[in-house]
Amino acid sequence: MHPTKAYAAPAVHAPLTPFSFERRDVGPHDVLIDIKFCGVCHSDLHQVRDEWGGAQFPLVPGHEIVGIIREVGAHVTKFQVGQPAGVGCMVDSCRECESCREGLEQYCEPGFTGTYGAPDKVSGGLTMGGYSNQIVVNEDFVLRIAEGQPLERVAPLLCAGITTYSPLRQWNVQPGQKVGVIGLGGLGHMAVKIAAAMGAEVTVLSTSPGKEADAKELGAHKFIVTKDPAALKEVRSYFDLIINTVSAPIDLNQYLQLLRRDGTMVLLGVPPEAPQIQIFNLIGGRRRLAGSLIGGIAETQEMLDFCAEHGILSDVEVIPMADINEAYERMLKGDVKYRFSIDLATL
Amino acid sequence: MHPTKAYAAPAVHAPLTPFSFERRDVGPHDVLIDIKFCGVCHSDLHQVRDEWGGAQFPLVPGHEIVGIIREVGAHVTKFQVGQPAGVGCMVDSCRECESCREGLEQYCEPGFTGTYGAPDKVSGGLTMGGYSNQIVVNEDFVLRIAEGQPLERVAPLLCAGITTYSPLRQWNVQPGQKVGVIGLGGLGHMAVKIAAAMGAEVTVLSTSPGKEADAKELGAHKFIVTKDPAALKEVRSYFDLIINTVSAPIDLNQYLQLLRRDGTMVLLGVPPEAPQIQIFNLIGGRRRLAGSLIGGIAETQEMLDFCAEHGILSDVEVIPMADINEAYERMLKGDVKYRFSIDLATL
Repeated sequence: MHPTKAYAAPAVHAPLTPFSFERRDVGPHDVLIDIKFCGVCHSDLHQVRDEWGGAQFPLVPGHEIVGIIREVGAHVTKFQVGQPAGVGCMVDSCRECESCREGLEQYCEPGFTGTYGAPDKVSGGLTMGGYSNQIVVNEDFVLRIAEGQPLERVAPLLCAGITTYSPLRQWNVQPGQKVGVIGLGGLGHMAVKIAAAMGAEVTVLSTSPGKEADAKELGAHKFIVTKDPAALKEVRSYFDLIINTVSAPIDLNQYLQLLRRDGTMVLLGVPPEAPQIQIFNLIGGRRRLAGSLIGGIAETQEMLDFCAEHGILSDVEVIPMADINEAYERMLKGDVKYRFSIDLATL
Repeated sequence: MHPTKAYAAPAVHAPLTPFSFERRDVGPHDVLIDIKFCGVCHSDLHQVRDEWGGAQFPLVPGHEIVGIIREVGAHVTKFQVGQPAGVGCMVDSCRECESCREGLEQYCEPGFTGTYGAPDKVSGGLTMGGYSNQIVVNEDFVLRIAEGQPLERVAPLLCAGITTYSPLRQWNVQPGQKVGVIGLGGLGHMAVKIAAAMGAEVTVLSTSPGKEADAKELGAHKFIVTKDPAALKEVRSYFDLIINTVSAPIDLNQYLQLLRRDGTMVLLGVPPEAPQIQIFNLIGGRRRLAGSLIGGIAETQEMLDFCAEHGILSDVEVIPMADINEAYERMLKGDVKYRFSIDLATL
């Protein structure tokens, strides 16, 4: 067993505090990773505050994990000691259902094993996430990371990166197509970078006029202030695809009207209340409203390789582990460009 | 000019009564059709009662028109006198926008010219529909009908047929795929027949247990009473495609859960109030909610040819023109199997 240092929420709504637990021994197909950085995802906070229901405590959040492999099991073939590696939102799945066989473990029918707060099928108890100094994961759920990259900026790709990459691929974004991105936070800034690298014309749709310069620096070609009816009218029936990264309650109908015929709006977050959809906005232009959940392991690897090839990294603010509670408060206010990345050396 | 007999609503909510007007002379690209039968679509009633707003009167409804060609213009190449022919929901469009150039006139950007109640670009005034003894239409908006078919049963294909055929094609229904049909009325009974002819396994989802035998006779393989939670549970994550023909307010969420991963629910009608969509139902299985509006002229021809080849006709109750007001009342109660077809010889 491996005594492990971490930060955990001891109970719902409680601030995160230092915590220790044991990681399992490295099994024949396991990889032990010394965690270097872990991104801070809004889901971490949702779970700490049990906003989705069913959270169990103590909870060690963190599913944007990068580090260096310290040990590999006897039968591990894909990884070697000393390599950088990553772990995202999943550490296991049933591996037998149709979705798993198609490499879409995120839609595993009995349900995948989340990286934290989920029943641990190997060790019992709950899985513990990346706000910790090490993790043991079956090699099939470990991702390769190209050498020589700044790991603090790779970490958020494991959730924010794949969550935006997957729908851009799923809806087959082609060079020259028009992609709108609603919201310029952790997910949104990755959507801008990835869609631009795919050759799309990228427009950020934001309520904050002050974000225009930043959006363009990230690679956006256009910026629309959504509170300005004239600006919105300019992009009516304009977009092939809109990636909606906002889970706060917003009127989806005004955005649906911005889709061209056969265009799609993909939602990545679950608003607290079910939004009302004016069906004529779908019928009128044969438009589609769709959802997307992270991405499969193979697609996550494809995304990491794509980002390495195109020099795409997350823009992060590195924080020490002890600042996590303050970081949550700042994240709620949107006061981060664009992702916090915890330096686990500070643990 | 051609003096024309018809039935019209003289004002909003007024019963339909006999009415006369003049059809334009047959222009070089026009076709004059002696109307034999006209289907009664729920849209006719929506318009007569101005439930969508903007209806203008006197209104001659009817956009499921079949008849025999009596005269063709000097430059008409596609049609000959004496042939059966049909007219659906559109009699013109801009012919220049991207949608028109792609043969998707129903999504014409400046808007197509509806068969009734729309500004008539050729003659001025309003277009007048198929509750009349004849119609003059540009040949590009006239459909070929195979010889020897019972025209009273072909008429509803021009709207109910194409409205259901188009999304089945758009979403690429393949033999063996699982198609659900919500609602067994004018649209629903066509969806069942067409999807079955495409080789799909068709399930009717209905609130009325009494419709099971009829559904199976129409070609449905399964029948699910949607008020029975156990029956619904059996088809969770089951369907590749659900065609929702119901525009009454229903909870779409219970149906979204019946879609398998990457499945789509297509809405064909606009509910009076915008329905609430639980976004997790879309994200959880990468599902889609989409809309579809009738079909283009080329696709309508394809549908008519498909139906002729597969022996697909609408199930109709033929009525005399004078019974139209009573037919509307019966339609509201669902008291028709499955479409009224007006015999214009009775006019």
